[in-house]
Amino acid sequence: MQVDWEKILAARAKTIVGFQIRSFFHLTEKPEVISFAGGFPADSGFPTAEIKEALACLLETEGKEALQYGPTEGIFELRQFIARKMAGEGISAPVESIMITNGSQQGLDLVFRLLLDPHDYILVEEPGYIGGLGAIQNYQGTRVGIPLGKEGLDLDYLEKKLKLMKMKGRKPKCIYTIPNFQNPTGAVLPLEGRRRLLELASEYDFLIVEDNPYGEICFEGEKLPSIKSLDKEGRVIYLGSFSKIFVPGIRVGWVLAPAPFMNKLILAKQATDLCSNSLGQRLLCQVLRSGFLAGHVEKLVKHYRLKRDIILESMERYFPPQVQFTRPRGGFFTWVSFPSSLYPPAGEILLKALERKVAFVHGDGFYSTAGKIPSYEARFSFSQPAPEQLEEGIKRLGQLLYEMQRLSKSAAVSGS
Amino acid sequence: MQVDWEKILAARAKTIVGFQIRSFFHLTEKPEVISFAGGFPADSGFPTAEIKEALACLLETEGKEALQYGPTEGIFELRQFIARKMAGEGISAPVESIMITNGSQQGLDLVFRLLLDPHDYILVEEPGYIGGLGAIQNYQGTRVGIPLGKEGLDLDYLEKKLKLMKMKGRKPKCIYTIPNFQNPTGAVLPLEGRRRLLELASEYDFLIVEDNPYGEICFEGEKLPSIKSLDKEGRVIYLGSFSKIFVPGIRVGWVLAPAPFMNKLILAKQATDLCSNSLGQRLLCQVLRSGFLAGHVEKLVKHYRLKRDIILESMERYFPPQVQFTRPRGGFFTWVSFPSSLYPPAGEILLKALERKVAFVHGDGFYSTAGKIPSYEARFSFSQPAPEQLEEGIKRLGQLLYEMQRLSKSAAVSGS
Repeated sequence: MQVDWEKILAARAKTIVGFQIRSFFHLTEKPEVISFAGGFPADSGFPTAEIKEALACLLETEGKEALQYGPTEGIFELRQFIARKMAGEGISAPVESIMITNGSQQGLDLVFRLLLDPHDYILVEEPGYIGGLGAIQNYQGTRVGIPLGKEGLDLDYLEKKLKLMKMKGRKPKCIYTIPNFQNPTGAVLPLEGRRRLLELASEYDFLIVEDNPYGEICFEGEKLPSIKSLDKEGRVIYLGSFSKIFVPGIRVGWVLAPAPFMNKLILAKQATDLCSNSLGQRLLCQVLRSGFLAGHVEKLVKHYRLKRDIILESMERYFPPQVQFTRPRGGFFTWVSFPSSLYPPAGEILLKALERKVAFVHGDGFYSTAGKIPSYEARFSFSQPAPEQLEEGIKRLGQLLYEMQRLSKSAAVSGS
Repeated sequence: MQVDWEKILAARAKTIVGFQIRSFFHLTEKPEVISFAGGFPADSGFPTAEIKEALACLLETEGKEALQYGPTEGIFELRQFIARKMAGEGISAPVESIMITNGSQQGLDLVFRLLLDPHDYILVEEPGYIGGLGAIQNYQGTRVGIPLGKEGLDLDYLEKKLKLMKMKGRKPKCIYTIPNFQNPTGAVLPLEGRRRLLELASEYDFLIVEDNPYGEICFEGEKLPSIKSLDKEGRVIYLGSFSKIFVPGIRVGWVLAPAPFMNKLILAKQATDLCSNSLGQRLLCQVLRSGFLAGHVEKLVKHYRLKRDIILESMERYFPPQVQFTRPRGGFFTWVSFPSSLYPPAGEILLKALERKVAFVHGDGFYSTAGKIPSYEARFSFSQPAPEQLEEGIKRLGQLLYEMQRLSKSAAVSGS
């Protein structure tokens, strides 16, 4: 008898779809393409020499521990370091409230696994991080989009939405948010907004899942207190990552959660992969002991600030003035809006850009309507391309955008 | 408003419980305790020097790739190596049917996530691997225990159970089995049994999840063909691991699955952790290129065979003759049965053993009845203790068991 896969799969398997980004990596990540698509950290910023040295030392002194299974919740020394780091950011959290994960993405997976029953409501930013939306979809959560402006989440809209939901007897379990240098827009939620979000969470009784992978990549202005540091009711679950401030290839992130939830998280991780990789965790400990990280992050901030400056200056110079873009003061991304009166949806612009060997990610996948409503927006990541590529890529795209405008105008003229 | 965690958690979170094993690691893994509990590979068998060298070379030649994000499905070269390895074991599988996971435990998690709706039936070995049972519980599967004899799964029982389930309109989605040197009993399913299991799977239309972490740790006798290699209908999902034949601390395992299922697996992993750690995967490639692994596995087999011989000889010599144990011809475990007429449940024996600084895992957690029916059995892992510890630990335990017998007899006498 042949296997009928459609019939045998669980309901949740049927709704799983891929990230649009990854489905065309084979096009965007060709060496001849200047790619603003990836969102990976720059490998030129990896401290390869230091890591080589640290690994040699590690294998000499703690080789057996670095190659053996470790505790599910992560290596104690690393959790201690993170607790101290969090304390420095105004979050007083005991080591026991911290669990190491395979990048913060695994934190999202485990958190949503424990929170979301099928069709549970969850508030998400629109546009929002694709990986977060994917993790929610894995557990069949129903996403309720909250628009994001230049000042982060639109809290007036959120409050109206919450009132409306309450009237309909609908209660969201949580909100998923990246308050610092958001992926994909680069927006920052102001301090007043953080306080108000906590008040709304308390009033309407939902949790806040605060994802902070980019917080330390801050180019200018004040670093705002995390939502977690303002949380008096234990309502915030905080996710951190070493992927952007160290390297992503060791897959080390963390979750910080209130005790009743942390216990469940550890049990869920146990049956998920027993533990995170010991080699990467102990490599990190080795590097952190030397105090290397602080200086390294400073260098990274300079590196990415320079790239941010170049991409914004190039957009200013080469893009038609009708094309708008955000001016992030940290992180990896700027969000570009093409006026729909002049351009086709961004997915079509992308296809033409690829012919000229330039890539970005069009906006469709960042919305909970993914694919149904074509987006006239796009995410540009400035983290990976070299400075000269940044300018060249935007220049090529600028030429394309001017050509498309001319075509669109002459079509309008000949059509009138 | 305070958070009501009980109310906010998803249904699946409420049923998650920890592995009994891990809950008393703090007792069993003290340095002064001789522990047969862990089931970890022996760190004396780790090729630390070779790994140190391979890492130095890796950071020199592929440093950037080893520290960057990688493809969700895993690094192509490693998947190619696994495809060749599988071909050598009679499984003809294209690279595309192989995905790298964070140890085979993550493979189990993803497979059960895609197969099990709450309350779906799944056939499991009794006693069975605790991590497998935990992964099933994470997705609220209903476990149907099939007893395991010296010859592996009791297929007559299985067939009767399947008939009975069919009469009741119940259909299992799959069976989860470790056919080689099973955890916890060490049993091997004979060739004829493998064929019959496939026939039953075809007749009753369920999948087989074949977990093979110990297959290469074979002390004597023939290595039997995997169930997957006999599978003509694409009904078997196969899980492999480098944890026992190389090191577990890099968390590298793999899933081999038919194409329609593999596509879903990759999408599920994408939203789970983006990708497995590149450093460990590329370290493995570096080591595998040199052809190091074959000779290394030979050494490990000798190492574990010696330990198996010592533990069995010691049990023979020091245990009361009424205490029975399996004689595995591979793997890490022997399964011990204490006659209930002479002894209290194994959990109580364990408490007394810990007073004498000896540890093992009592049998409760290996059954789907976990904790409800006390077990008179126990798993002894001989992989970790040094040879002299193996004998000393069993000797101490033997003394305890004789003492307990005497006490039980004198109690019976004084009670009569």
